[in-house]
Amino acid sequence: MIAKRIAALTPYVAGEQPAGGYIKLNTNENPYPPSPSVAEALRVFDTEKLRLYPDPDSKALTAEIAAYEGVRAENIFLGNGSDEVLAFGFCALFEKQVAFADVTYSFYPVYCDLYGFKKIILPLNPDFTVDSSAYKKTACGGIVIANPNAPVSLSMDEQEIIQLAKSVSCNVLIDEAYIDFARNTKSLASVAPQFKNLLIVKTFSKSYSLAGLRCGYAVGNAELIEGLNRVKNCFNSYTLGALCQTAALAAVRDRAYFNQTVQKILSTRQHTADALQKAGHTVITSDANFLFVRHSSVSGAEAYARLKQQNILVRHFAAPRTAAYIRVTVGTDAEMDAFTNAFLKF
Amino acid sequence: MIAKRIAALTPYVAGEQPAGGYIKLNTNENPYPPSPSVAEALRVFDTEKLRLYPDPDSKALTAEIAAYEGVRAENIFLGNGSDEVLAFGFCALFEKQVAFADVTYSFYPVYCDLYGFKKIILPLNPDFTVDSSAYKKTACGGIVIANPNAPVSLSMDEQEIIQLAKSVSCNVLIDEAYIDFARNTKSLASVAPQFKNLLIVKTFSKSYSLAGLRCGYAVGNAELIEGLNRVKNCFNSYTLGALCQTAALAAVRDRAYFNQTVQKILSTRQHTADALQKAGHTVITSDANFLFVRHSSVSGAEAYARLKQQNILVRHFAAPRTAAYIRVTVGTDAEMDAFTNAFLKF
Repeated sequence: MIAKRIAALTPYVAGEQPAGGYIKLNTNENPYPPSPSVAEALRVFDTEKLRLYPDPDSKALTAEIAAYEGVRAENIFLGNGSDEVLAFGFCALFEKQVAFADVTYSFYPVYCDLYGFKKIILPLNPDFTVDSSAYKKTACGGIVIANPNAPVSLSMDEQEIIQLAKSVSCNVLIDEAYIDFARNTKSLASVAPQFKNLLIVKTFSKSYSLAGLRCGYAVGNAELIEGLNRVKNCFNSYTLGALCQTAALAAVRDRAYFNQTVQKILSTRQHTADALQKAGHTVITSDANFLFVRHSSVSGAEAYARLKQQNILVRHFAAPRTAAYIRVTVGTDAEMDAFTNAFLKF
Repeated sequence: MIAKRIAALTPYVAGEQPAGGYIKLNTNENPYPPSPSVAEALRVFDTEKLRLYPDPDSKALTAEIAAYEGVRAENIFLGNGSDEVLAFGFCALFEKQVAFADVTYSFYPVYCDLYGFKKIILPLNPDFTVDSSAYKKTACGGIVIANPNAPVSLSMDEQEIIQLAKSVSCNVLIDEAYIDFARNTKSLASVAPQFKNLLIVKTFSKSYSLAGLRCGYAVGNAELIEGLNRVKNCFNSYTLGALCQTAALAAVRDRAYFNQTVQKILSTRQHTADALQKAGHTVITSDANFLFVRHSSVSGAEAYARLKQQNILVRHFAAPRTAAYIRVTVGTDAEMDAFTNAFLKF
């Protein structure tokens, strides 16, 4: 009794969310708690307000994010996690066919199947960098690029993305879930409204330590944002609850805490990468809060399994180009020491 | 730069959510706060947990709702408000064309346009009751009925719905957003899993006083629920945040508070309806937390405008069959006295 087009879909499979007991380095969560101001904002939240519908436009949160990004409120679209923003973005901005990398966020092909778009798979270069010339040569219905890219952790120079957007006629969606962890690459959020076809998507799940809250947003010119709002308002008028709006607002305002936790992760990332490379293993230079690592002698599947036996959970992607690697979220120093010790003993 | 099929859509328009200063009887919110156990659950919630993704299956909340409804966990699907559940339900369970009433929840035609389904509009009887025979005669791709129906406040006998579901080959979606306020009609949630084509959708927004939380659910046989999960997992793996799961769980467990607030609303509803009818105005016998009211001499648009001038916000639907009426949410006794006094002085 399920619609045929739905029964034929293969859903996205998220990383395991086990009950506990693991050093959990498998879903790119932040090892640090959210800003203390989030706890405080929830503590003083008047629960009685929950009887009312939330502000459907999340005006206060939108204004705060717009100020942070240096754009106007009309350039911001909020969603129930960046996955929802991506889902609405694919629906509103793409037509017929969508181009993306062979190794990237595995939700992109799922959205294509959901909306009936043809998938144009453009392989990454042998060194896992993006071949932007391939996108320029492809018939355009939509382009989506994760920058930095998952699970490979590399980023594309932001000027190269701007050149790409200028040279194609379709919309270009840049998924910046991990941008706050990049070394040199800058977010394009502040300049996106200047382009007719560039949408930037960001999330509170990684750098803000709020994966459990479900909040993400897009930045783009007012026409693209209006398209996203049109889809949202044909789907669910109130996608962000009042608690979510309150907590996210507190998090955006606490820049000091944000910078401090991001810096800690960058430092731990460097320390871990150095130790692994020194021991002869391959570590892609990471611009994200995870490392893409290849053991010098043990396969990715085997590394995943051995680590799991020692209660360390990482992620392994079995596809040909990624099978030799594991993706390891950057946790606390203690967690990464435990991982490194286990990995180096294989 | 917006996809053509999206630019052509007419989004749903929710009731106004003004900043304040109104007696707000326009969006069927509950006038009472949520259960005190919701506030307590949020007070003891460990904010640090927000750094982790929430349980994508909301297992604890699913188990509690299943126990309450007398069904199994496999019969429950949770969503980010019942609007999201409806959106996924339309996508997973309907094909080609969907039948619904001319006077009903105005999101149904919007979902049809979003998914490209033909709308089969089956007029309510002159007394606003549902003509179930019309559904049996119509070529079937999907049927959606709000029971009780909005904005007319009437419900269909649940046995008539079962007969309808048995007599058609397509899926039948019953939107029970207001069922907890019905006088005699019973929810079909507990028996829905016995039918191959019956899905019941419920919400925390009305009877649980949690419109600001965004939580709704569906009850049906395991195959239909699997279809909903398939769509969800092609759209957004984590639709319910951790705070939402925690608060909703506390609300479901507090049956005493739920029953008490529902009873207060039923009592206020009766009192208000009696006063209006005694003064010669038309009030449809309500099975919901709102009244559908026609003034004996003043039009619906005029009644809406005059009430708004007095800072009382109700809802008016300008379509031909509803234009004479206003829809008035049942508030507190004091709010309804203010409304009644204003209305009777026109």
